[in-house]
Amino acid sequence: MQISQLGEFGLIQRIKTALPQPPPEVIVGIGDDVAVLKISDSEYLLATCDVQVEKVHFSRTAISPYQLGRRIAAINVSDIAAMGGSPWWALASLALPPELETEFVDALYEGMQEQLGIAGAVIVGGNLSRIDKDMVIDLCLLGKVAPENLLLRSGARRGDLILVTGWLGDSRAGLEVIRRPELSISHKGRRQVEQRHLTPQPRLREGQELGSCGLVHALVDVSDGLLGDIRHICRASRVGAEIWVGNLPISSAAKEIAHASGHNVSDWALVGGEDYELLFTASPESSAQIQGILGERTGTWCHVVGRIVDEAEGLQVCLENGTKIVFSEGFAGWDHFAGEKL
Amino acid sequence: MQISQLGEFGLIQRIKTALPQPPPEVIVGIGDDVAVLKISDSEYLLATCDVQVEKVHFSRTAISPYQLGRRIAAINVSDIAAMGGSPWWALASLALPPELETEFVDALYEGMQEQLGIAGAVIVGGNLSRIDKDMVIDLCLLGKVAPENLLLRSGARRGDLILVTGWLGDSRAGLEVIRRPELSISHKGRRQVEQRHLTPQPRLREGQELGSCGLVHALVDVSDGLLGDIRHICRASRVGAEIWVGNLPISSAAKEIAHASGHNVSDWALVGGEDYELLFTASPESSAQIQGILGERTGTWCHVVGRIVDEAEGLQVCLENGTKIVFSEGFAGWDHFAGEKL
Repeated sequence: MQISQLGEFGLIQRIKTALPQPPPEVIVGIGDDVAVLKISDSEYLLATCDVQVEKVHFSRTAISPYQLGRRIAAINVSDIAAMGGSPWWALASLALPPELETEFVDALYEGMQEQLGIAGAVIVGGNLSRIDKDMVIDLCLLGKVAPENLLLRSGARRGDLILVTGWLGDSRAGLEVIRRPELSISHKGRRQVEQRHLTPQPRLREGQELGSCGLVHALVDVSDGLLGDIRHICRASRVGAEIWVGNLPISSAAKEIAHASGHNVSDWALVGGEDYELLFTASPESSAQIQGILGERTGTWCHVVGRIVDEAEGLQVCLENGTKIVFSEGFAGWDHFAGEKL
Repeated sequence: MQISQLGEFGLIQRIKTALPQPPPEVIVGIGDDVAVLKISDSEYLLATCDVQVEKVHFSRTAISPYQLGRRIAAINVSDIAAMGGSPWWALASLALPPELETEFVDALYEGMQEQLGIAGAVIVGGNLSRIDKDMVIDLCLLGKVAPENLLLRSGARRGDLILVTGWLGDSRAGLEVIRRPELSISHKGRRQVEQRHLTPQPRLREGQELGSCGLVHALVDVSDGLLGDIRHICRASRVGAEIWVGNLPISSAAKEIAHASGHNVSDWALVGGEDYELLFTASPESSAQIQGILGERTGTWCHVVGRIVDEAEGLQVCLENGTKIVFSEGFAGWDHFAGEKL
């Protein structure tokens, strides 16, 4: 069987099953975005990697090397944020074509360092290699978290509300305006969504507040798309989820661009992915309090977009007209091998 | 300027210079094979990455996926060994073509896990991605070391002897028999050097003994070739070195294959690289004691191959006929961008 038939998540599951059971100091191992590793009683080490492949994840004509550096760093910082943690140290592995200009590498590192610096992390090493064709960049980010602040995918409970920070669908709208520069839309809207796609801002302080407030049950970042990522929570927590389309936080810029390009903006918010917002669950009693804490301490608003239900009910999307769409078990959001979004 | 003109080590220096000074908890940062990071007063975290690119570092026709997994793990374990440390946790990032068979991935992980398992490490995460053409594998290995056992490149002193474990040139001989299967050589010799090239055995216990014996001044592993790696010690320690070609430990298999293929076996030992032996310096008074400790506790012999001299004397190779060759400052061993060995 080819790996594209098995898909990214099927392949991860296959690898996990074949490997020996990890020792107890591995709090979270293969299958999550971030490994959680006990280095002392008072501190866990967090470790995450993200590979960006030219022509698969980015195009050198659409993103500047500085933006690319920021983006790669932001994706990793977002993963650490989604554990309630703090970024610490980064290793950058680059496979680069030999004819690449040194200025490209300078700007790439400048972007990585700037985004990592904001997050409190430093680049401490990595590896450089030649590649004949498309470049590959793998950033490995280490972080730390106090055990009592760690948030996992697996803590969601039936009856929890599902909340998300900021806005969904902007990144997908940004991709649309980059692909179709001829679209007739406002300059401000174009600029907003382009930035959200090219240089997303990870919700680091928000993740840390969610981790330390003691009110959140489960947390992930929105990288694969709202439906893909809530599915991660559902699987790990053995629950189902109901997503309320009428409640999705969608910016007027995303609405404008979806309209101009003939797309359904709700689809972008549900499966667009790469928004790097935080998606979490909490009891209905604490949700307003969490909204208050986040708003007051970070200036970021979060919206209730659904609720956790019994596992048997699966993943359901409730449209504004009252229709419910039930997603089958096979649905998993963005798949890096299939290369197709739902 | 293109990065191939600057070269791997020039590019690393350029990146290091552009980045801000790291905080004091970064004991060793960019420029070494391994980052050394203070996580507590009694423990340092070690972090290293190695990228293997298809058709640059390996060919799927010459190495099995199981061997490839072992090899990638061994390269990283060797880096941790060269700090006197112990491997702990690994993250594997793979960019794979979608048509790859799942059995390839199974065997690759089996190889990685087996080599890492011997070294006491477990795979805890990573990242999977699609790539359209040649696969890229980046293994990031974390390790630990007690501060008093840490060995760096920078501790060599004038008058030290230079020692190396095991044998030099076998890996290059292995590459020769893989490239030229028609060579008329003994089955035993072919098998020995092929294994040394495809599945090198990292000198982990040896590195740990060297770290804890308190007698070693500087340590690296032989990945870029003896001359390239002693140059790393010279630069970091601000010393020069004299290499005695007549003392190089060369196996009879490597001699046989060099003879059959019309090569100079000393060149293979000096610049062949990828032997993953340990290269270290110690005072003449402790060298015999270290040889005794290593031999007794690990069964591995080490040979004196030269001595540390004044920085002004540079890097000198003393041939058996009495001739001295002095290498210029520009020489740096294997360069991953220039892609040429000396």
